[in-house]
Amino acid sequence: MAEHNVTVESTLKALLNDKKYSTLKDILITMNPSDIAAVFEELDEDRTPLLFRLLPKELAADTFVEMEPELQELLIKGFSDSELREVVQELYVDDAADLVEEMPANVVRRILAQADPQMRKEINEILRYPENSAGSIMTTEYVDLRKDMTVGEAITRIRRTGIDKETIYTCYVTEARTLVGFLSVKDLLLAPDDEDKISEIMDTKIISVNTMTDQEEVAQMLSKYNFLALPVVDNENRLVGIITFDDAMDVMEEEVTEDIEKMAAILPSDKTYLRSSPWELFKHRIPWLLLLMVSATFTGMIITRFEDALAAQVVLTSFIPMLMDTGGNSGSQSSVTVIRALSLDELEFSDLVGVIWKEIRTAVLCGIVLSAACFAKIMIVDRLLLGNTEVTVFVALVVCLTMALTVLVAKIIGCSLPMLAKKIGFDPAVMASPFITTIVDALSLLVYFAIASAVLFA
Amino acid sequence: MAEHNVTVESTLKALLNDKKYSTLKDILITMNPSDIAAVFEELDEDRTPLLFRLLPKELAADTFVEMEPELQELLIKGFSDSELREVVQELYVDDAADLVEEMPANVVRRILAQADPQMRKEINEILRYPENSAGSIMTTEYVDLRKDMTVGEAITRIRRTGIDKETIYTCYVTEARTLVGFLSVKDLLLAPDDEDKISEIMDTKIISVNTMTDQEEVAQMLSKYNFLALPVVDNENRLVGIITFDDAMDVMEEEVTEDIEKMAAILPSDKTYLRSSPWELFKHRIPWLLLLMVSATFTGMIITRFEDALAAQVVLTSFIPMLMDTGGNSGSQSSVTVIRALSLDELEFSDLVGVIWKEIRTAVLCGIVLSAACFAKIMIVDRLLLGNTEVTVFVALVVCLTMALTVLVAKIIGCSLPMLAKKIGFDPAVMASPFITTIVDALSLLVYFAIASAVLFA
Repeated sequence: MAEHNVTVESTLKALLNDKKYSTLKDILITMNPSDIAAVFEELDEDRTPLLFRLLPKELAADTFVEMEPELQELLIKGFSDSELREVVQELYVDDAADLVEEMPANVVRRILAQADPQMRKEINEILRYPENSAGSIMTTEYVDLRKDMTVGEAITRIRRTGIDKETIYTCYVTEARTLVGFLSVKDLLLAPDDEDKISEIMDTKIISVNTMTDQEEVAQMLSKYNFLALPVVDNENRLVGIITFDDAMDVMEEEVTEDIEKMAAILPSDKTYLRSSPWELFKHRIPWLLLLMVSATFTGMIITRFEDALAAQVVLTSFIPMLMDTGGNSGSQSSVTVIRALSLDELEFSDLVGVIWKEIRTAVLCGIVLSAACFAKIMIVDRLLLGNTEVTVFVALVVCLTMALTVLVAKIIGCSLPMLAKKIGFDPAVMASPFITTIVDALSLLVYFAIASAVLFA
Repeated sequence: MAEHNVTVESTLKALLNDKKYSTLKDILITMNPSDIAAVFEELDEDRTPLLFRLLPKELAADTFVEMEPELQELLIKGFSDSELREVVQELYVDDAADLVEEMPANVVRRILAQADPQMRKEINEILRYPENSAGSIMTTEYVDLRKDMTVGEAITRIRRTGIDKETIYTCYVTEARTLVGFLSVKDLLLAPDDEDKISEIMDTKIISVNTMTDQEEVAQMLSKYNFLALPVVDNENRLVGIITFDDAMDVMEEEVTEDIEKMAAILPSDKTYLRSSPWELFKHRIPWLLLLMVSATFTGMIITRFEDALAAQVVLTSFIPMLMDTGGNSGSQSSVTVIRALSLDELEFSDLVGVIWKEIRTAVLCGIVLSAACFAKIMIVDRLLLGNTEVTVFVALVVCLTMALTVLVAKIIGCSLPMLAKKIGFDPAVMASPFITTIVDALSLLVYFAIASAVLFA
């Protein structure tokens, strides 16, 4: 895709330089809104307003929605009131609410002034809900039907009002604003008789979410049930909006990025990497780096305590990085696997004992293979090839025994901490590699020196 | 959701024990297929066939699709040929192809024997495509229209043939099997006049994928363009199938899990955590553990080379874990951020210099704060509170300078390796924490001993 845009971009630039506006327009209208937005992002800022004005009304609005907030703000600032009104009126309510949330206050005032009163009311309603809640991402534009309508009447209603709805494919049946059923346009079209009542063909196995449900759960439910849209109800079970699959896909991407950032000891950010300044990256990375650095004090203290032993057998030091890394890697394998399974709802707290038992058996297998390989490596590479005579069989045994025990400890901690974190209401994703590594480091050193003391200095 | 299933499960078990089959059936038919499947997974194996037979035909097939392969196999083995035929005939072709792929050969033969010839042909066609290709996940059941049809004729065609189509909402217009346009049922229903020709209202900005396109790219395109379905064409540009958004959501989940596994040095697996045996977990984890352990030989060699220096100043050893961990964490922050941006198509290789420059500035900020904090921590905690007199101002300076340089090196390597990997055709996700850590460990030790030699042993 990227290559494609680069070529289109240079063609458009050349046409723009030659002021060939009608050719430009002819090309742009063959393109998809999200591709046009991508090209606009790459152009000089002072040229985008000109290009944007070439787009027909509907395409302009669709393209506008796909742009990054910076470019949207730039365009709005250049719009006359009537241009702004045209774009705003073409937006779906949930996109308009997103826009209002991203823009600075003075731009927001202009946008709301250009929205009609009904839309203004709906935008304000959506903005009332907390960030990441179902209410904040829903749209209030859905098709609602009544139980006593016939199939024919329902189709007529859709044909009359459907143009402004985000989706017409799932229709919701309400009674005094309460959701009593739903059906798809497929059900309507395939109904044997146009005189059938909606109440006879509607599905009453309603799956809905509350306005306060977390958006991640909403996305998972849409994916689980393969729905095109999920209805959102308030505390009195009244239908207030719907969330469509395309918004759920965006949420899934967002939430995965957030999880991955947390796993890498980064505070999650809403901005993409390219749009983040070094200062912003710094602010999101430094807290965990500081915390983890300070907590490494313990490993330092452990080494200091065994300083005399290390001074007598300096060769032991040379295996510390390998032991720490292997422990950290083993632990993060377990923690990351469990964190992912938790976020896909495959695991529950009640599985804890089973998970630990599975990890113990896996750790034993890994431990045996790793320590055998390690023993061979030490005796062949370190002792024979590198000719380090300090590396005795006893040293090799101490290292390998430590490794096997470290892997065991690392896997148990790695799998159980995320589950415990979730149980007490913390985010399991934080219990990933960096955090686990810090704990496993300290434990592996303790095991190392304990075994070394027993075997070498007995 | 989980809590809910647990309760339903115990109710169903009680009813099953009391042989109250009609009540059981009444409850089951109010449930959603994916919830019924979840309950079935939790029941004793010998009871599921009985319960499954209580489900009406269509619900039975929908529930069957949502089950894990083990349970599907168990059920099929208990089915009579006519029962199997009923389930198979209700399946969409892509689900049937998935099933055939998962089952052992003898079960596959029975399934194919019960499918009608047309379905058998289509299943075989889908199975021809390589794993993870668009062809392998597409369905061949779509609505195709002709350019010269009227809106009214098109609606009639959908009403007549729609029942067997996976989606009717996006219809494809073909001419001699070549895709020439598409339109939505919304376009059809909202068309001003039933006599309008399809060619007048269809959209000709076709976005399609080839049968060999990677499934991850397909999922990203569906998400980018907010399409309900994407058409799949062969090398002669003939329409051969479609991929719907729900399959794309599954692909997204799968691919993210795979990326996360790779980032944690695990070979990706198709099986969920709970379904993997310790032996399988072991096989997916040990290769990277072994490789990373052996590559830690270099850190050992570096320490051995500076053994004399360490023996003279054992206190230096106590800071090795902190330096290594901070370096590893800094590097994995950068690598994971860049890997995620690459997989979301936000970054390209041409951004490399910009990315490195951004990471350098971030690293300088992080390095200043970390080494200042580290200096304070060493002087206050290690020297004053713990009374370690070996920890001099010079030692603290050596440690802090090393830390700042390590952070810088780690961030540069962390951001550039994934981009280089992608450029030369490797998977960037492999260049995450464990891999970066191993490299950064060795470099940080080299920096440490070089600075220590210069400052302390000059």
